[in-house]
Amino acid sequence: MPAAEPVFLFGGIIMGKEELQKAVREAVQRVREKNPMAPSITNTVTINLVANAQLAVGGSAAMVYMPDEGEAMAQLGGAMYINMGTQMPIYAETLIRTARALREEGKTWVVDPVGIGVGGLRMSVLKSFKEFKPGVVRGNASEIIALANLWGLESGVKNDGVRGVDATDSVDEAGAAAVSVARFTGGAVAVSGVRDLVTDGKVVVRCDGGSKFLPMITGAGCSLGGVVAVYACCASPFIAALTGTLVYNLAGERAEKKSEGPGSFQVHFLDELYKASAEEISVQSFSIEEE
Amino acid sequence: MPAAEPVFLFGGIIMGKEELQKAVREAVQRVREKNPMAPSITNTVTINLVANAQLAVGGSAAMVYMPDEGEAMAQLGGAMYINMGTQMPIYAETLIRTARALREEGKTWVVDPVGIGVGGLRMSVLKSFKEFKPGVVRGNASEIIALANLWGLESGVKNDGVRGVDATDSVDEAGAAAVSVARFTGGAVAVSGVRDLVTDGKVVVRCDGGSKFLPMITGAGCSLGGVVAVYACCASPFIAALTGTLVYNLAGERAEKKSEGPGSFQVHFLDELYKASAEEISVQSFSIEEE
Amino acid sequence: MPAAEPVFLFGGIIMGKEELQKAVREAVQRVREKNPMAPSITNTVTINLVANAQLAVGGSAAMVYMPDEGEAMAQLGGAMYINMGTQMPIYAETLIRTARALREEGKTWVVDPVGIGVGGLRMSVLKSFKEFKPGVVRGNASEIIALANLWGLESGVKNDGVRGVDATDSVDEAGAAAVSVARFTGGAVAVSGVRDLVTDGKVVVRCDGGSKFLPMITGAGCSLGGVVAVYACCASPFIAALTGTLVYNLAGERAEKKSEGPGSFQVHFLDELYKASAEEISVQSFSIEEE
Repeated sequence: MPAAEPVFLFGGIIMGKEELQKAVREAVQRVREKNPMAPSITNTVTINLVANAQLAVGGSAAMVYMPDEGEAMAQLGGAMYINMGTQMPIYAETLIRTARALREEGKTWVVDPVGIGVGGLRMSVLKSFKEFKPGVVRGNASEIIALANLWGLESGVKNDGVRGVDATDSVDEAGAAAVSVARFTGGAVAVSGVRDLVTDGKVVVRCDGGSKFLPMITGAGCSLGGVVAVYACCASPFIAALTGTLVYNLAGERAEKKSEGPGSFQVHFLDELYKASAEEISVQSFSIEEE
Repeated sequence: MPAAEPVFLFGGIIMGKEELQKAVREAVQRVREKNPMAPSITNTVTINLVANAQLAVGGSAAMVYMPDEGEAMAQLGGAMYINMGTQMPIYAETLIRTARALREEGKTWVVDPVGIGVGGLRMSVLKSFKEFKPGVVRGNASEIIALANLWGLESGVKNDGVRGVDATDSVDEAGAAAVSVARFTGGAVAVSGVRDLVTDGKVVVRCDGGSKFLPMITGAGCSLGGVVAVYACCASPFIAALTGTLVYNLAGERAEKKSEGPGSFQVHFLDELYKASAEEISVQSFSIEEE
Repeated sequence: MPAAEPVFLFGGIIMGKEELQKAVREAVQRVREKNPMAPSITNTVTINLVANAQLAVGGSAAMVYMPDEGEAMAQLGGAMYINMGTQMPIYAETLIRTARALREEGKTWVVDPVGIGVGGLRMSVLKSFKEFKPGVVRGNASEIIALANLWGLESGVKNDGVRGVDATDSVDEAGAAAVSVARFTGGAVAVSGVRDLVTDGKVVVRCDGGSKFLPMITGAGCSLGGVVAVYACCASPFIAALTGTLVYNLAGERAEKKSEGPGSFQVHFLDELYKASAEEISVQSFSIEEE
């Protein structure tokens, strides 16, 4: 490892960029070999794209709503994805019981706190999730800030700029909140934006790429959460969050070149998720920032 | 304005075709500048297409099911879309509370009475909506006739021809019902068909274009409702309904030329919604009929 | 009919391959002429693809969740589709009341027992369905084995290999279960896999074709169930199951040749469902096995 390259402690092992790239390659390859099932409880708007993205990268998908089915999936799946998008009355029971089961099983789970700030049920569930420590939190900048604030963690930003499902804060502004959340959970946080941020609370990685069309299709973020859950079946939360972010940036770049608008972009994007090789994903642009 | 061109009173101002075209251009431009959020409570069949169509024309989408979230969206959004497609038990509370909040906020809302005639909950909710006066009603011919009849308004047709989600009445047959509903609400009505009809209860505009493939993809009508809500964030109900109808006819024509079937049509359709310029939309074929 | 060709009794009439092909052609043509409505209660993951596939082959779609709407659809529709994918609390009432109404109306209905084995509600509903005898059961190998076992019918396999929504048993292993279920219901069973199996309990047909991409898009199986329900509006359960299987294999083969990945495959697949002629569907590869 050249001296110029930042080094850091990851899971007790000193890792540099090359080691991270190797871990990314392994995550991609293991998923394609093992076809792991990453079940979801996710919103009805983008549920189809979540499943198709999970399949495109080599995973298997299964979506449920009922409380006992959430618990069953917590046992059967490798890692699980909970997206807060469209709350339904039964979620008061389903989401809590599922998160508890995941915690008891010691399974990694990924949460997307989409819509944070809207509605009593959503807020009370998100508050409860603090206890069950999701392995990965994925969101836009405003959502990560809002979650850190909801959980009483250091965010450095008093009032988040959540607007419906959109962010008005920048990824840079969410850096402190992301690190706080990752330190608290012991897992990882992925903040999506123009330059994405992925952190395990110790180091911060910034990722480039993607496409102007990604925010113009519904579910780009939601489906990334589902894909991170697939990788989390075969890798640590941090490597899973990084791998998902890299493959999205790569596929986004490639799909944009072939697309005339958001309709064709979504089609090409799924194709590119499928076609991206482990090697190509691992060399997608990212840089390690010292914390 | 040439004497040969029909003139009419709109919002107290005499408007001819050129003035309407100017208003359409402004609606398109304002939406692309402001990226307004038009939240929805909509069916699970076509919810993804609704969101993607709203994004393609430059809006932002957010879908909810819970009563307090519907109320929150009525406050946060610019205009709101309620589609009656797939009723769920919680809707008994959500839809009424949301419509009341919209009325109290003075917000424009768009309703699509899809499935009218089927089910006790749907019928009782649709009946209640009379009180809360939706700014735009969008539907096929049979649905508009059925809604006028349900609300006790003049429709000129005793028995509507609703069949599931399809119409068996012609747009011409729904003209009287559309005018009655628009006069009652003080807003606009858009009737989709081979030649679409848009009215504010005073004048009737007929619009040409579209595609044979539009009825062959699920959600063409539903997503038009969502797009009309986006335009209603930045324009009057009548201009919003007209603008949405025009962009759908334009994008439908263009997409059909590039498509081999309904699968590729949907992809190209979203691209063309995205690509259509304000100028192009405003000159899409329509004619003013004197009432 | 050449002596070398197997013959069998179908609906009291001796039919060979040519007669089956003729019946398939007629089913395809009648659907395109009559545009029959096949309503569904189906999961939220793939509900859009179900509707679009039904439209692409010439049918009409309508999806509901409420108990009285399920009953209304049982009366209004030609044949109905019930997919067990994403259970919701109201289904405890909706699914039983709808299945009972379908039985009382003497309507053919198609069930996809997806997710069998997961959750108390799903299992109790699937158990109850035995009484209401679905005309067609469509599933993967493991699901058909599991349903035969749940209903106490001969399956020849003690422990099914259901894994989430995926099968781990082969189609060959599900042959006995499929025949048992078809004999019990007096209808047909379609088992999807590399070589599909369709049986009316008396004869077994094996079908070739499809695509490696079909298992890589979510809802290939779900939407086949919806398409079979469309054909069941105009044909016997066995011919409907066979016709749906053949058009899926044909469209899958054709779409794969034009596709770079699962994203473009889904687009081309819908186009090919739409473009396939009655003649082409009827000569898609299948063979009759003697029971």
